[in-house]
Amino acid sequence: MTDSRFGMTELEDLPDDLRQRVGLIAEKSGFVPNIFRALGRRPAELRAFLDYHDALMECSDGLTKAERELVVVATSGANHCTYCVVAHGAILRIRTKDRLIADQVATNPWQADLDKRGRAIVDLALALARTPEHFGETDLANARAAGLSDDEIWDVGAITALFAASNRLAHLMALQPNAEFYTMGRQPRD
Amino acid sequence: MTDSRFGMTELEDLPDDLRQRVGLIAEKSGFVPNIFRALGRRPAELRAFLDYHDALMECSDGLTKAERELVVVATSGANHCTYCVVAHGAILRIRTKDRLIADQVATNPWQADLDKRGRAIVDLALALARTPEHFGETDLANARAAGLSDDEIWDVGAITALFAASNRLAHLMALQPNAEFYTMGRQPRD
Amino acid sequence: MTDSRFGMTELEDLPDDLRQRVGLIAEKSGFVPNIFRALGRRPAELRAFLDYHDALMECSDGLTKAERELVVVATSGANHCTYCVVAHGAILRIRTKDRLIADQVATNPWQADLDKRGRAIVDLALALARTPEHFGETDLANARAAGLSDDEIWDVGAITALFAASNRLAHLMALQPNAEFYTMGRQPRD
Amino acid sequence: MTDSRFGMTELEDLPDDLRQRVGLIAEKSGFVPNIFRALGRRPAELRAFLDYHDALMECSDGLTKAERELVVVATSGANHCTYCVVAHGAILRIRTKDRLIADQVATNPWQADLDKRGRAIVDLALALARTPEHFGETDLANARAAGLSDDEIWDVGAITALFAASNRLAHLMALQPNAEFYTMGRQPRD
Amino acid sequence: MTDSRFGMTELEDLPDDLRQRVGLIAEKSGFVPNIFRALGRRPAELRAFLDYHDALMECSDGLTKAERELVVVATSGANHCTYCVVAHGAILRIRTKDRLIADQVATNPWQADLDKRGRAIVDLALALARTPEHFGETDLANARAAGLSDDEIWDVGAITALFAASNRLAHLMALQPNAEFYTMGRQPRD
Amino acid sequence: MTDSRFGMTELEDLPDDLRQRVGLIAEKSGFVPNIFRALGRRPAELRAFLDYHDALMECSDGLTKAERELVVVATSGANHCTYCVVAHGAILRIRTKDRLIADQVATNPWQADLDKRGRAIVDLALALARTPEHFGETDLANARAAGLSDDEIWDVGAITALFAASNRLAHLMALQPNAEFYTMGRQPRD
Repeated sequence: MTDSRFGMTELEDLPDDLRQRVGLIAEKSGFVPNIFRALGRRPAELRAFLDYHDALMECSDGLTKAERELVVVATSGANHCTYCVVAHGAILRIRTKDRLIADQVATNPWQADLDKRGRAIVDLALALARTPEHFGETDLANARAAGLSDDEIWDVGAITALFAASNRLAHLMALQPNAEFYTMGRQPRD
Repeated sequence: MTDSRFGMTELEDLPDDLRQRVGLIAEKSGFVPNIFRALGRRPAELRAFLDYHDALMECSDGLTKAERELVVVATSGANHCTYCVVAHGAILRIRTKDRLIADQVATNPWQADLDKRGRAIVDLALALARTPEHFGETDLANARAAGLSDDEIWDVGAITALFAASNRLAHLMALQPNAEFYTMGRQPRD
Repeated sequence: MTDSRFGMTELEDLPDDLRQRVGLIAEKSGFVPNIFRALGRRPAELRAFLDYHDALMECSDGLTKAERELVVVATSGANHCTYCVVAHGAILRIRTKDRLIADQVATNPWQADLDKRGRAIVDLALALARTPEHFGETDLANARAAGLSDDEIWDVGAITALFAASNRLAHLMALQPNAEFYTMGRQPRD
Repeated sequence: MTDSRFGMTELEDLPDDLRQRVGLIAEKSGFVPNIFRALGRRPAELRAFLDYHDALMECSDGLTKAERELVVVATSGANHCTYCVVAHGAILRIRTKDRLIADQVATNPWQADLDKRGRAIVDLALALARTPEHFGETDLANARAAGLSDDEIWDVGAITALFAASNRLAHLMALQPNAEFYTMGRQPRD
Repeated sequence: MTDSRFGMTELEDLPDDLRQRVGLIAEKSGFVPNIFRALGRRPAELRAFLDYHDALMECSDGLTKAERELVVVATSGANHCTYCVVAHGAILRIRTKDRLIADQVATNPWQADLDKRGRAIVDLALALARTPEHFGETDLANARAAGLSDDEIWDVGAITALFAASNRLAHLMALQPNAEFYTMGRQPRD
Repeated sequence: MTDSRFGMTELEDLPDDLRQRVGLIAEKSGFVPNIFRALGRRPAELRAFLDYHDALMECSDGLTKAERELVVVATSGANHCTYCVVAHGAILRIRTKDRLIADQVATNPWQADLDKRGRAIVDLALALARTPEHFGETDLANARAAGLSDDEIWDVGAITALFAASNRLAHLMALQPNAEFYTMGRQPRD
């Protein structure tokens, strides 16, 4: 299997702004995450995707960055998305400094052992992830009872929505995670 | 019920670029679609959403604009999203000049009566909409057998992905369609 | 696509009693609803269907006629039945004098915005519509807590049951709604 | 638990025509099947139900009476309806002179061992029973390939529809089967 | 259809220890239950299966033997396993001296009429049977509220687990129940 | 969260035969896998479980040991069982010498990229794992078309059955994987 059903665009073949932007990510990670090479086939879509992603994930007002990744791993687990589970699982391990949490949340997001706030965040995300037509006041009330503000609720919902899209793009492409992601954040720290 | 659980931002309170951009849509429609007022609470997210939307929906290479709306109505019907079914149902009626198709596709996308190409487009979208983990080579082969090119397949998949997100945002907000959408495109033409 | 997979029986070809009975409906509506022409192939079944229908729908003891239509539209939406959603959606608009309610209830019956009594009626109907094996004392207790009497509960359940049948007949026949139904009750009133 | 949540009407309290009609059934069976006492609360509904039932079940053009019961037991099994599984299971045993078939079809209608025609009948019924929105041309083609005529297909579909209603009425009432049904047709014949 | 897709091993062809062990069961029942002849193809597996079965089912500390069979019939009903429903339904009738309970629990385990303790046992089993990923603290709390001890909860869970395996083995083999099971325990007692 | 809801039995508190048997496993692994300490509460059940496990997993007639682990990881992924996914994912990595396969198969067993034989094995397992009532001749025919013998089909089915049980035991106990399993087999080999 190739890394994506629709081919890959290499960094040097992206338009200037995207080459720079993805280049910075690559520099930080040490490799170009496959999602960017795969979406590179459509620069306007990649640009919008990056903007949406950054607006929601590169922010730490309210939800911490680790909590944002928790939403991604939980919903991607519920959606059985290999790319997002492996790639964002790595980021979640790094952000939480917890080597075990990603596999637990991705495998069984409904019952993974989390503190009260983490559980409320994941429950809210799961309520919207698979059968959004049932999402309602009860879900909001539970989130508020756990102390989530309206802005935090929006964030959980919007991240769930964005990765509903990402997961489907990855399934469409049969996108494979870079090998590096599988092991990132798994080593015990000194 | 209010029109959105998280409140509305009026056109005049949006940042300049968004006020202009949404203003143009409002001019053409005769009203500001509620989704833009609802997402206005988060300008960066609204901007990215509009960019992604335009990249996929304001294009007629390969898939026609009517076919793109067909994907939206079918997947929003499968996701039981009232806002998107009513708003994009209106656009579908206008784009196809068919007064009946939107209600048929939204109510039962799996069996609505469509020509072979339309059916292939909708089947592909539905395969990705609700249980994307099962999406695979068979779905692609069926689409290709109906004559869809790889770029058309990408479009169907990416629109399905974008509205997986939109539908969830609308469910999160309990977003109500503007009253105008319910009747647009229902009048017999001369 | 024809209007029904099994053909249509015209009014004049029905047995006398049915010709008269359906004729009265046609006079009132301005057209013969397709369901009667489709079921006309089997006069004894059409007769029993009309009797059952009238016993439950042409009655306003307890549940109002509008509330009865609400049950029909909600369960037909949950069953994705295009004929019943479009035809009874029209009647619901007329009975409630609400131009928007039918599309909302049909698209997402689980979360459509209804008053407490309307919500209780729809929740009871939905509990029986798709997974009737789980219907139990909790559903009854919720209905009673919202003030529904036992006769009203029976009505909601029996209408849900009758349209479980109707919806399946319509799916069996791929029955198409008359074009008139799509627009009935959508015009603003003076 | 009582035999029905909404009480029972005894034979002698039914209107004349129904008392006679149900009386004949009781004479033949040796007892009054509980469904008639339970529906007796609403004579007009009971009358329509009996008419619909007789039109479909007391007929042996095309489908034999045993095949009609096969449809009932299969769909009632899929709907987990205790009353219909036990009562019509008894009738199926008697009609087929097969002591084992009812438990097999009711417990696992999807895989019960049946001859080609029986399997086609049951598959058609199951396709319409639980997710009727997916019912389509493939289901019809399979039925025709097994030799079913259009009238036989109608019968299977209409019986499935009628028992979609019956099953829900029984779930609504928590209707209990008469004890006699459990053992009818289980004795080896000489 | 044969009794098992993978053939049967007759009692006399089993290894000594198994021949003796199964022989004792046959003596007591009057016939060799088909499951033992079917698993006989793999003596080591049959031995382990019997050991596991006896450890859980031939014990009456905490849960009575009748309650253990109740778990088997409820979960086998939910799993639509004909062999286990018919065979253990017979044992349940005998253990409870109730001729009706098995058909009720097997057909609709979610709503069968049981006393409070029986309902709690069945609810616990069902929570684990079909979507075990959702099993959690709420299920345990409900069981404890009904008075179940931790050892009883373990028993319900472990029996549900063992029959999750048995049901799948029976589905794999298309295993047929011995004719004797269908009628055992159905006769009124003097 | 503790490692198991029902407590742990330490190696030294097990009966002699089990202490020796589990001791050998611990020696080989470098630690006592939690499942054995958790099941230690019930020595007879642990003994039967080990026997069943060894009969199916410690064998390489037909299916290789790696293929047997493939079945475990695929079905445990479909059942969202964290303990089995993490523990047997580790063993699968070691047995296949493939550092990436376990996360791919566990996250999306339906679409993970496998060779034709691997795909046939996993498809067969999945057909039995979640809705075993639909398992039938088509599944067997597909397996045979991919070259699986009847003994290999039995193995796939029996391993799926055993882990249907294991997964439910782990869910019942909220069993946590030993930390060691998360990283085993992830290091690149020289």
